Amino acid sequence: MQFDVACTLSYAVSQPVTALFNIRPAATAQQRILHETLLLTPAIEVESMTIAPNGNRLDRILLGAGTVRLDYRARVELDVHRFDPDSVAECPPAALPMDILDDLMASRYCEADRFANLAHKLFAGIPPGHTRVTAICNWINENLDYRPGSSDAHTSAIDTLTDRAGVCRDFAHVGISLCRALGIPARFASSYAFGLDPPDFHAVFEAWLGDRWYLFDPTRQAALDGLVRIGVGRDAAEVAFANFWGGPVEPLDMQVSMVRSDGGVEDATRTTDAVSVAAA
Amino acid sequence: MQFDVACTLSYAVSQPVTALFNIRPAATAQQRILHETLLLTPAIEVESMTIAPNGNRLDRILLGAGTVRLDYRARVELDVHRFDPDSVAECPPAALPMDILDDLMASRYCEADRFANLAHKLFAGIPPGHTRVTAICNWINENLDYRPGSSDAHTSAIDTLTDRAGVCRDFAHVGISLCRALGIPARFASSYAFGLDPPDFHAVFEAWLGDRWYLFDPTRQAALDGLVRIGVGRDAAEVAFANFWGGPVEPLDMQVSMVRSDGGVEDATRTTDAVSVAAA
Amino acid sequence: MQFDVACTLSYAVSQPVTALFNIRPAATAQQRILHETLLLTPAIEVESMTIAPNGNRLDRILLGAGTVRLDYRARVELDVHRFDPDSVAECPPAALPMDILDDLMASRYCEADRFANLAHKLFAGIPPGHTRVTAICNWINENLDYRPGSSDAHTSAIDTLTDRAGVCRDFAHVGISLCRALGIPARFASSYAFGLDPPDFHAVFEAWLGDRWYLFDPTRQAALDGLVRIGVGRDAAEVAFANFWGGPVEPLDMQVSMVRSDGGVEDATRTTDAVSVAAA
Amino acid sequence: MQFDVACTLSYAVSQPVTALFNIRPAATAQQRILHETLLLTPAIEVESMTIAPNGNRLDRILLGAGTVRLDYRARVELDVHRFDPDSVAECPPAALPMDILDDLMASRYCEADRFANLAHKLFAGIPPGHTRVTAICNWINENLDYRPGSSDAHTSAIDTLTDRAGVCRDFAHVGISLCRALGIPARFASSYAFGLDPPDFHAVFEAWLGDRWYLFDPTRQAALDGLVRIGVGRDAAEVAFANFWGGPVEPLDMQVSMVRSDGGVEDATRTTDAVSVAAA
Repeated sequence: MQFDVACTLSYAVSQPVTALFNIRPAATAQQRILHETLLLTPAIEVESMTIAPNGNRLDRILLGAGTVRLDYRARVELDVHRFDPDSVAECPPAALPMDILDDLMASRYCEADRFANLAHKLFAGIPPGHTRVTAICNWINENLDYRPGSSDAHTSAIDTLTDRAGVCRDFAHVGISLCRALGIPARFASSYAFGLDPPDFHAVFEAWLGDRWYLFDPTRQAALDGLVRIGVGRDAAEVAFANFWGGPVEPLDMQVSMVRSDGGVEDATRTTDAVSVAAA
Repeated sequence: MQFDVACTLSYAVSQPVTALFNIRPAATAQQRILHETLLLTPAIEVESMTIAPNGNRLDRILLGAGTVRLDYRARVELDVHRFDPDSVAECPPAALPMDILDDLMASRYCEADRFANLAHKLFAGIPPGHTRVTAICNWINENLDYRPGSSDAHTSAIDTLTDRAGVCRDFAHVGISLCRALGIPARFASSYAFGLDPPDFHAVFEAWLGDRWYLFDPTRQAALDGLVRIGVGRDAAEVAFANFWGGPVEPLDMQVSMVRSDGGVEDATRTTDAVSVAAA
Repeated sequence: MQFDVACTLSYAVSQPVTALFNIRPAATAQQRILHETLLLTPAIEVESMTIAPNGNRLDRILLGAGTVRLDYRARVELDVHRFDPDSVAECPPAALPMDILDDLMASRYCEADRFANLAHKLFAGIPPGHTRVTAICNWINENLDYRPGSSDAHTSAIDTLTDRAGVCRDFAHVGISLCRALGIPARFASSYAFGLDPPDFHAVFEAWLGDRWYLFDPTRQAALDGLVRIGVGRDAAEVAFANFWGGPVEPLDMQVSMVRSDGGVEDATRTTDAVSVAAA
Repeated sequence: MQFDVACTLSYAVSQPVTALFNIRPAATAQQRILHETLLLTPAIEVESMTIAPNGNRLDRILLGAGTVRLDYRARVELDVHRFDPDSVAECPPAALPMDILDDLMASRYCEADRFANLAHKLFAGIPPGHTRVTAICNWINENLDYRPGSSDAHTSAIDTLTDRAGVCRDFAHVGISLCRALGIPARFASSYAFGLDPPDFHAVFEAWLGDRWYLFDPTRQAALDGLVRIGVGRDAAEVAFANFWGGPVEPLDMQVSMVRSDGGVEDATRTTDAVSVAAA
């Protein structure tokens, strides 16, 4: 399927700042960028780089005082790999690629070191595999309230489990923490999400099962086969769509959109299949 | 200078576990491994890998039930780069290598997002550069008690700043958090430390200044030019010398040593120079 | 029923300290102190006071350097009031005695302000009354591990719910937090507990239902009709059996005992009745 | 001096709730209520009670759905006791009234158990007495930013010390925590504050020195001899000016005022004397 994704971000800047954006879809074998444009108003030089090993595509821009607007558009060919969930096994730490082991460790918003007991109580009795991570997502969905405004930039998985409320970012952090506590590598993924209402950037997570990363959305707000993945990292601390250094910046506007561009009807549905968009 | 570093670790294992060790010195242009041996008793297959991009050298070993002992020895040629601290400037986010920007972000034990105000109150008035990071280390050394047993595996920089006590790991976490809050990339580094008393693995941190990583030890317990760096990462969560999955493991013994092997007298002193052992 | 309760506490004191003990059973209409002795070795003056409004009976003692031993013994006539749990209703905030309302507030180890959502998700659907507080205790008992050594003097209800493990103190804190979050006044109670194995001080909690305080033990380790209540307070911060000011004190020994003294066989059983020992 | 204090509070209520207000000045030997009126619009029955032992004067009101407005006015004769700060000594735990010892304990927002080390590092070298508590207030005032909006109902002293910012409530919590950690009883006090700009309820704290409670305001925003004390408690958890049970309530308006009513000019100044308004 082909999608057109776009975002418009504008800011009031009172003193020169260094801005770092992470809004471009990742370029992978299964997610091809057909064409893309980034327009700055006023025109400003953009320094772009793809960061190894995660493949995040960053733009660094020095913003002068004044109003700045950023328009990004891309057409993306998405080649979702679907699998029968029952056929996707967990990969024990003994067999994991060694450079994946870092994704078992605790991070700023995912204190996996504190969740060993809870994770085992809730999920040790469920047969390992894709369906166990789905069980984690189901539990999150049933036990946490999705409530805009209930969390902030300092909210971690311990906070979310205590408060039993959060947004997509928080749901992902809880899912990641529980996976890691069970020995399943997991990482945070930002994305464009087809059909998300209201339109916005979306946060999901990926768990390493079998021989690749699989997508999971514990909010159940987006279809897994309609996700165009942007950046991945340990947690939201590493995958913000915008970071600023040098002073405060006032957000003026943010628009995110995603539409089918291949003439297909909008039939992306909430799949229950195992879905992967990352290279094996 | 040449050093012989060694460690002996032994464990009682009650059920098969996957162990991951991070005890080998990093191999860099300035830190050459002349020879090394890793001996497992009983003999067990070891899977070794150097992880990009950090260069951490990991050993994965499947331990069966019983007692296991690991002996590691290496001769390391250390070519410390010394600089006049006054000549080492900070590098603003606008000029940092883009793949270093992740080291500005908050992590499990370094909640830099919470330290912006404190860092600016304490250190914004100090001229940027190597001497400012030294000022951070001095402040830590003067305001925290070094007290074995005062922290555990869940202790973060917020905890340490509240309790005003910790060990080398905690001192490093506070230093990293304050640097990141000031826009200085910083990361955790484990090491062999010449002259450390009692001998043990040591934790320090690196801050990116000018065009390279510089070493800092807020505990003041080790000479910076006598540090053989092992692993680097966001914080202790990523640089444990040992991780285990699959069950509890009982540590039986741990010995760490580091001696001069070039006939030189033990004259490594607590340098006040800026010291770097990482590739530029 | 009559019980003989006793405790022996001994300490090594290196510099003069002020000690405050809260080890005497409360004297209430239903819990009569028939006789009691407090012996200090060496002999030291003891300042005793019953504190309003809770009725805690405190002993303040100035300990000089050296070894000190405290022996306390009491015979207590316990007149437990039993009720049919189904007949004990909750008392809404509108009808509560106004001087009980403080026991709805958050305290050091019972962050009830953070548990509103969790408490309503778990227990809002259960009919109000004594049986709902029993449901809270059942949930705690089923979802937390009783594990000596898993908590310390700083552990709060948020910590315990995260770690899913604790001791009697922690179980009580979770119970209190959940009750308060539902609008049920609750407080911490220390006690001698008949049949507790191994013998020790015990921590339970009281919830205000109907027109009085009822006892609850989410650990299920003691029979409710075999509890001799010592002190009550917001949480463990206010009901420690010993506090010291002026320097560190090394505990040398602690013995706690409780036996039937009325010739009755040891037939105190784990009652499922609603039990109250506090004045109405 | 005489003051007229007043507050108007109005709320939109969507379902019946139980409201508890703590807005009446305490009636003490030094703070006499000459006359007062509480008007509810629409007219609703008010249940009023003075709670022992603190003397807090509470009003409980059952609010039906609709808009409700509360107007409170009082004339207060304030007889401030001033002392030479240098003459006011600390009272060691050995000599404190035993019913004051609870105010040495940790509470919800004042985790004094965590501040022993910090308090001793900062203030153990300062001679005990009123001037030491003033030194604590000075430190708070110099090291924390007064910043409306920087904290919320869950913010504790650990949070405030980490973030280095807060409002009057948070400044008081830090002051209380540091006092208790030094063995000085301290409690939270809400008040009307003469000259506070903008007018609002104010939070200060009291420390027990010599033989009575003394007032301290680490924000330095109010004159100590122009404070009409409302309620006292362990911390803000126990002294909210309004609590509601039964459902959410939307605040519509809040007006607080305090003027001289004795013809005196507005000459209450920021005194550096030791000030007490509580009964000895």
